[in-house]
Amino acid sequence: MQYSEMTREALAAEYERLRAAHQRFVLSGNRLDLSRGKPAADQLDLSDALLTEPIDRADCHLAGGLDARNYGVPLGLPEMRAFWSSLTGIPAEQIYIGGNSSLALMYQTLVRGMLFGMADSPRPWCQEPKRKFLCPAPGYDRHFAITEALGFELIPVGMRSDGPDMDEVERLAADPAVKGIWCVPKYSNPTGVTFSDDVVYRFASMKTAAPDFTVMWDNAYLVHDLADEGEHLADVFAYARECGTEERFCYFSSTSKITLPGAGIAMAAFGPKSFALHAKTMGISTIGFDKLNQLRHLKMLPDAEAVRRQMRRHAALLREKFEILENVLSRDLGGLGCATWTHPKGGYFVSLDVTDGCAKRTYELAREAGVTLTQVGATFPCGLDPRDRNLRLAPTYPSKGELLLAAEVLTVSVRLAVLEKLLQS
Amino acid sequence: MQYSEMTREALAAEYERLRAAHQRFVLSGNRLDLSRGKPAADQLDLSDALLTEPIDRADCHLAGGLDARNYGVPLGLPEMRAFWSSLTGIPAEQIYIGGNSSLALMYQTLVRGMLFGMADSPRPWCQEPKRKFLCPAPGYDRHFAITEALGFELIPVGMRSDGPDMDEVERLAADPAVKGIWCVPKYSNPTGVTFSDDVVYRFASMKTAAPDFTVMWDNAYLVHDLADEGEHLADVFAYARECGTEERFCYFSSTSKITLPGAGIAMAAFGPKSFALHAKTMGISTIGFDKLNQLRHLKMLPDAEAVRRQMRRHAALLREKFEILENVLSRDLGGLGCATWTHPKGGYFVSLDVTDGCAKRTYELAREAGVTLTQVGATFPCGLDPRDRNLRLAPTYPSKGELLLAAEVLTVSVRLAVLEKLLQS
Repeated sequence: MQYSEMTREALAAEYERLRAAHQRFVLSGNRLDLSRGKPAADQLDLSDALLTEPIDRADCHLAGGLDARNYGVPLGLPEMRAFWSSLTGIPAEQIYIGGNSSLALMYQTLVRGMLFGMADSPRPWCQEPKRKFLCPAPGYDRHFAITEALGFELIPVGMRSDGPDMDEVERLAADPAVKGIWCVPKYSNPTGVTFSDDVVYRFASMKTAAPDFTVMWDNAYLVHDLADEGEHLADVFAYARECGTEERFCYFSSTSKITLPGAGIAMAAFGPKSFALHAKTMGISTIGFDKLNQLRHLKMLPDAEAVRRQMRRHAALLREKFEILENVLSRDLGGLGCATWTHPKGGYFVSLDVTDGCAKRTYELAREAGVTLTQVGATFPCGLDPRDRNLRLAPTYPSKGELLLAAEVLTVSVRLAVLEKLLQS
Repeated sequence: MQYSEMTREALAAEYERLRAAHQRFVLSGNRLDLSRGKPAADQLDLSDALLTEPIDRADCHLAGGLDARNYGVPLGLPEMRAFWSSLTGIPAEQIYIGGNSSLALMYQTLVRGMLFGMADSPRPWCQEPKRKFLCPAPGYDRHFAITEALGFELIPVGMRSDGPDMDEVERLAADPAVKGIWCVPKYSNPTGVTFSDDVVYRFASMKTAAPDFTVMWDNAYLVHDLADEGEHLADVFAYARECGTEERFCYFSSTSKITLPGAGIAMAAFGPKSFALHAKTMGISTIGFDKLNQLRHLKMLPDAEAVRRQMRRHAALLREKFEILENVLSRDLGGLGCATWTHPKGGYFVSLDVTDGCAKRTYELAREAGVTLTQVGATFPCGLDPRDRNLRLAPTYPSKGELLLAAEVLTVSVRLAVLEKLLQS
């Protein structure tokens, strides 16, 4: 029965029952964590080859008499660029190989805009009197933090089930001070949404007042399916070529959650003009990235089929955890009318919306009972959830036993927070 | 006998003899290279352990339940910070561990100044109407290229046998638009000069008009001695603490020429306020650097004594090459009065000064005879050698046979260039 249909007495009784349950959790002294979007140790073990497989000196000999151990090959090994081309469909000559962090490539790309301007900028962004960036929300806090640090005004944009609200995006892009937008187009962090073909096409075809409008296309979860059949994401560069807007898109991905988060291989891809500018700036700013780690990755994952096999092993481990979380959420919160949540087909998160004004209180109640949740507001620009309702749940890192317990603490906390509000009103 | 004391006829005869020798080199079709400051393959083989030694899962377990394979530990492994502390004498809490490129850390440091300002900046450097940077010359082209790209006016400063001309540095630092200086304080690129205690102390104690004057202290060759006993370099942070100028210094080094140029470990160190700002900015701009490569390095080089052993092996290979070059230079150019050169006790370069106005012509003659030299002017800000006399020689990368031949082509080219000039006058 929905809370809204229950009598005050029934609500009070339910409150007392849950209060007692919560108190038991508090006294049990648990230390659990649902905040960390990290692979668990059993997933990391799937990449033992990176720790143990030796590289031969012969593997280091590259075309043109170059040696992978020495300086050189600043754009990345041709084989690694081809590898990413086969995963993304983007031509290898538009692909740049970085270090272990795609976030670092995103930062470097936006810093390039700040200091020198993008391919079609009238001036460097740091000389713009006012600059704004669109932030589909709920979204990824580390994205928002970068544009906040670089002095952009962050404009939230609503997320729908097929991607950002494109009417809103197009309306906002009519302001020349709006210089771009953050996107996680597949299994979005935290909603799990994959952008529809229509949304992707609108990104490629839409009019923007700023000639240097930049779409930060962070395809972090491109092969991170929970089911055998992944969700379909359209090839944004194919649409962009058709629309003549290739320079608008900066594409990023990495093997952080294919192999190892601390020691993966990141990539970026750009339109041809932007690629040349990126290569020039990076050529001044670094001696190039670690090519031995590229060799290690190519040895372990020589092609897209090897990646698919690896991701099926991850999925087998992750699926059970997403199921545990889903089961507890539907058992404890289903039908009460106090919460909705996502049912992602991939990625690392479940997004939970509780009754307006109850997310912060849920966070506090969970913390008292020993469960750390992602800071409320973290999924919104500048850390402000206007309706105080969204919680990002990360089920991947705890063990299954810990996850089950943490989920139960969570649902007790959600119900208590909502009941407190109902009983106070 | 010096060229200046020879008759015109004797000079002409010498010219004809060398012209014939040069022609023989041209016809022999050599393809040799003295331009690349890279370790040779036999040096890279000294770090095979990085390619072949496995890491155990147990090695990955870090304090606080962290796992080196996963996200986290953004400042670098405590053991790696302690390792660099033992090599440099800098307190570990001021040391930041980067990826494989110290040049990248230098760029990121100066970009931080551009976008946000350094610890004591009145405003971000990008908002300064005019900004200048001091460039001791001859120096390192990649340093100069960074400040040039960031829009600094590059001011050359003379190099003396004990470091930069400090009277000139102090005079120029009285201009508030001068925001800093590049330094390679030990075995300078390309002169091989190690800064004297007096020079180091003057850097720490001097007055600067800019409150955010920044000394980019690139100690790339800190343990890169050719002889058993290396040259002494004073501890700049010790002097700076004494003078209250710790925030002035940004210190950099890496294992690029201890282990592998493409896959080493870079570090930076800062004054306490600057360290906090660096850690904050890097915390926004990356998920952190590759900790597995840090583990690999700690396994191969657990302490300073292991580094000394490794560097003695490098020295044994390098010493022979520096001797070959020195022998040919003194045999062919000694006593002619047309060239002087350095006799470095470490590092990767010999700096050759020929008669004014003859460096470019030497470069061309060597190229005709199949020997690539570093572009003339590369060692000066904006690529302009005002006296057209300096050539940077890199003897480390060719084999001993190639080096001997290349050095002979070089000395023939130097003499021809000088004789051409003398005979035309």
